[in-house]
Amino acid sequence: MTEHPKTLTCGALPASSKIHVAGTLYPDLRVPMRRIDLDPSSDEPPLVVYDASGPYTDPDAAIDIARGLQRIRTAWIEARGDTETHAPRPVAAADNGFAEGAGLAPAFPLHHRPRRARTGAGAVTQMAYARRGIVTAEMEFAAIRENQGRDMAGLRDGHDWGAAIPDHVTPEFVRAEIAAGRAILPANINHPELEPMVIGRNFLTKINANMGTSAVTSSMQEEVDKLVWAIRWGADTVMDLSTGRNIHTTREWILRNAPVPVGTVPLYQALEKVGGVPEELSWDLFRDTLIEQAEQGVDYFTIHAGLRLHHIPLTVDRVTGIVSRGGSIMAKWCLAHHRESFLYERFAEICAICAAYDISLSLGDGLRPGSIADANDAAQFAELETLGELTRIAWDHDVQVMIEGPGHVPMHKIKENVDKQLALCGEAPFYTLGPLTTDIAPGYDHITSAIGAAMIGWFGTAMLCYVTPKEHLGLPDRDDVKTGVIAYRIAAHAADLAKGHPGARARDDALSRARFAFRWEDQFNLSLDPDTARALHDATLPKQAHKVAHFCSMCGPKFCSMKISQDIRDAAREKGMADMATAFRKTGELYVTLDEGSDG
Amino acid sequence: MTEHPKTLTCGALPASSKIHVAGTLYPDLRVPMRRIDLDPSSDEPPLVVYDASGPYTDPDAAIDIARGLQRIRTAWIEARGDTETHAPRPVAAADNGFAEGAGLAPAFPLHHRPRRARTGAGAVTQMAYARRGIVTAEMEFAAIRENQGRDMAGLRDGHDWGAAIPDHVTPEFVRAEIAAGRAILPANINHPELEPMVIGRNFLTKINANMGTSAVTSSMQEEVDKLVWAIRWGADTVMDLSTGRNIHTTREWILRNAPVPVGTVPLYQALEKVGGVPEELSWDLFRDTLIEQAEQGVDYFTIHAGLRLHHIPLTVDRVTGIVSRGGSIMAKWCLAHHRESFLYERFAEICAICAAYDISLSLGDGLRPGSIADANDAAQFAELETLGELTRIAWDHDVQVMIEGPGHVPMHKIKENVDKQLALCGEAPFYTLGPLTTDIAPGYDHITSAIGAAMIGWFGTAMLCYVTPKEHLGLPDRDDVKTGVIAYRIAAHAADLAKGHPGARARDDALSRARFAFRWEDQFNLSLDPDTARALHDATLPKQAHKVAHFCSMCGPKFCSMKISQDIRDAAREKGMADMATAFRKTGELYVTLDEGSDG
Repeated sequence: MTEHPKTLTCGALPASSKIHVAGTLYPDLRVPMRRIDLDPSSDEPPLVVYDASGPYTDPDAAIDIARGLQRIRTAWIEARGDTETHAPRPVAAADNGFAEGAGLAPAFPLHHRPRRARTGAGAVTQMAYARRGIVTAEMEFAAIRENQGRDMAGLRDGHDWGAAIPDHVTPEFVRAEIAAGRAILPANINHPELEPMVIGRNFLTKINANMGTSAVTSSMQEEVDKLVWAIRWGADTVMDLSTGRNIHTTREWILRNAPVPVGTVPLYQALEKVGGVPEELSWDLFRDTLIEQAEQGVDYFTIHAGLRLHHIPLTVDRVTGIVSRGGSIMAKWCLAHHRESFLYERFAEICAICAAYDISLSLGDGLRPGSIADANDAAQFAELETLGELTRIAWDHDVQVMIEGPGHVPMHKIKENVDKQLALCGEAPFYTLGPLTTDIAPGYDHITSAIGAAMIGWFGTAMLCYVTPKEHLGLPDRDDVKTGVIAYRIAAHAADLAKGHPGARARDDALSRARFAFRWEDQFNLSLDPDTARALHDATLPKQAHKVAHFCSMCGPKFCSMKISQDIRDAAREKGMADMATAFRKTGELYVTLDEGSDG
Repeated sequence: MTEHPKTLTCGALPASSKIHVAGTLYPDLRVPMRRIDLDPSSDEPPLVVYDASGPYTDPDAAIDIARGLQRIRTAWIEARGDTETHAPRPVAAADNGFAEGAGLAPAFPLHHRPRRARTGAGAVTQMAYARRGIVTAEMEFAAIRENQGRDMAGLRDGHDWGAAIPDHVTPEFVRAEIAAGRAILPANINHPELEPMVIGRNFLTKINANMGTSAVTSSMQEEVDKLVWAIRWGADTVMDLSTGRNIHTTREWILRNAPVPVGTVPLYQALEKVGGVPEELSWDLFRDTLIEQAEQGVDYFTIHAGLRLHHIPLTVDRVTGIVSRGGSIMAKWCLAHHRESFLYERFAEICAICAAYDISLSLGDGLRPGSIADANDAAQFAELETLGELTRIAWDHDVQVMIEGPGHVPMHKIKENVDKQLALCGEAPFYTLGPLTTDIAPGYDHITSAIGAAMIGWFGTAMLCYVTPKEHLGLPDRDDVKTGVIAYRIAAHAADLAKGHPGARARDDALSRARFAFRWEDQFNLSLDPDTARALHDATLPKQAHKVAHFCSMCGPKFCSMKISQDIRDAAREKGMADMATAFRKTGELYVTLDEGSDG
């Protein structure tokens, strides 16, 4: 297991620098992007890519986790004039799992008064603004990011399965997608440190990484570094799934230092408060937990409100029953009390809370299949139907919603999931775990699921929840988190390519040109994980001279296909393909050229 | 880099034993399978799985690499009476890259006289027999393997894209598929150590692993162990892509110890013989190399005969030109001599050689795309059309053929590759490298390509050529080979599940039942890589007690969804779901049950 470092993981990725793009509607916006500089002796311009890593990769940023990130959204939120600050809910011992004395983690040093909607102001959500025709600063910020500094018209090649991806993402397009419920912009008004981003089928495919506190927490810096590490490699959001002690305090440290949306499953903390006994959960306790997390700034809540009492018998003959933790907790509660889930019955009240803080809902799939055998079964689809019903209730409250999806699904049943979700949930964004396309490879479920994730992303899933090699087996360490994030960046990018996202291919083409021209350094620097690419090259050809060699270790200098291919290209261009064509025509052979007017 | 061990990697996988199934037509056949025994306290029967690992995983087998494996096919071949032995072609210094003195590897100690078709006997290929209605011992052997000891009728669920997969594979079905050209059974008559297997769209999806000699060969045992290691984890065939010194001798050691088909690219050795200068290649030299390898027992030859002179200009404006080594060598030869490829012009002569030894042809895709930008372009598809033409010529000679495919292809262009290949090449088996679904992740190309491999396998590719994490960067070591093989076993199995191969789900279901019942040992033992699954579990929960714990480290005992789900199931079964349904009906709520006559 790799130890977490004693210092925060800061600094730019190789050959990369942070640039900032200003807004038009909101000229003060500083939208971060990553510029990768290429070999100056080549004709290649720098490549600008989407950058979710936050100020941690900006050498000019002053990072102090005890102060937290700059609260860039505060001015935007205040300017809207529809919120007010108030005294916070007092922190109870139960919030931190009854940790005490030396076991109690240090509190975050600064106190910010929480903010909520002013009485009578209505919903203060991005959806409410969008529906009123207001383009917020958050929307322009997210729009600019999506374009990655490129004018993308022209390079369109893909099959989008009915999505409607524009050549260029405008702030107005972001507004319209949020208003229609096809996208969400998770941004709690108590998380002003956030760099806003948008999740929807017509935007770049996003990925989420899960994190949780360690059983033995040695420092808050270590906990914050888990977040920093995940976003360094490309997580667009993180979910804090901590259980046990100090989760309130740890969440505060994480949120104050998180430039990405943070999601939680409030049920986990609520269960801690009742000593882990599902039957003892109550609406009052749950509601209090929602307020607790809302005031801290959690951007989205997973709520398993779609699992209803009458669904439970549908799972009895499954191979793997109920594998969602939230789902099994609620099922146990429902059976113990023999009554309908309080999450379902109180759903409108949950929405009212979300509307007052702009918390997005991620409707949990408590009945997702946990095995190939259980995929697309009656239980799963019955719950999905309820999720569609809940989506409409949330929208009635101007609350942003996404829908969680499976799980374990063989390839031939993946598309049906997306089609049903789009139809039943009014095109609300789909957020899927994998899916794993086979059950037989524990230890490699980042791969079994990257296959499913790439496909479901192509078909229309907006965000992919990562899976690490430790899935089903243990707690991911630092290496596992990185491997999971990279596997999912691959899946998301493969999906974007296949959907025909404008500009998605720019990075592939830049890397492939570097590869063909033997610009090894550029090839490493353009890759999703420059450190690993370089290390694997070093393993066979460690010398610096090999980084400029016109061959690689696979074929060696004599056999290098790309070297030969370059010779061919040079020779062909010198001689002129037209001459060759003429020569060939004389012999009566068919000769195909790329020129117009070719006879082939 | 992991060192190769000093001893051969032998011994059974955990909880596994080798069983042998007898034939019906040929009662003496001993078809190997792997039986995985499960916890005796469970009701689970042992699971029998396909086993390509050869006698190395059989503790009862006496392994002596200096004698080679048992020559099980000799009696079958002799019984056919259509072949004769003869004096071998003398080994020339050039065959071993002019190695000499201490640099010369030790020759394989035993000499077997090579065999070829008796003059006037015609083709001695499995295809020739199949077309004459003869079911060979090889065909029955391969048929028995495909069924994995199971009666598979009943469990069919999938979408096969027009394949015709039977419930049960009979020897006659294998014969008919080979006769139709839809399957091949690569089995050189000079490779009697082979355990026969079949490659075709209507059989289980197969995978190939590439291997090559090290620059510094410390021992022949090390070279043989590379083969043993690859098949231990599930490679169905291996390609020996060695270059440099001692390749003739090393190939002899490998073939004499290979229970799986061995493929080569004879062009690589031919190029070595002319000092690496493509222009100096000649038909005579190439022909002599084919005979050399035919007599040793190579089961399939990759021949880049589809790359024609007039295709070359189509590659000039590609982003990555020609990335196939064989393709670039032949392109250079064609341009240097300004004439048609001798592989194309002499293709009928190549077929005649293959027919005399039963060597299958793997028609190389010299113009496969090396980048997303070049996928499905005019060059690629022009060559594929030629491959279709060559397929028909091979079939005229009763020579078995498969067709190699790309490469780098974004997801939305994968299906077109399969559709065109099936149409242009008369449903000859497709054998693809990946494809990689994005170019941006060097260091992780086993993942970028496992996505494409799973999909193309589902669509109809018969065999998937593996890609390791070192692709584009360096030479794979022992760990890389294992990672590549497992990634491709995942892809092949995901494809088999989605195609609806009968019985494919048996292993998923067995593993998922073990998971739900917290039979951790069974879960490890049923997985593709038991060692890694166990090691990852140990990383978080090392104690033996945890291997029987009714929870895992991910949620811990209080939160375990499967534990809760089991409780729910037990409670529900005790109380009786029917009672619950009745209770619910009284309240007027809809209540769905799984029973017939439900009102839901």
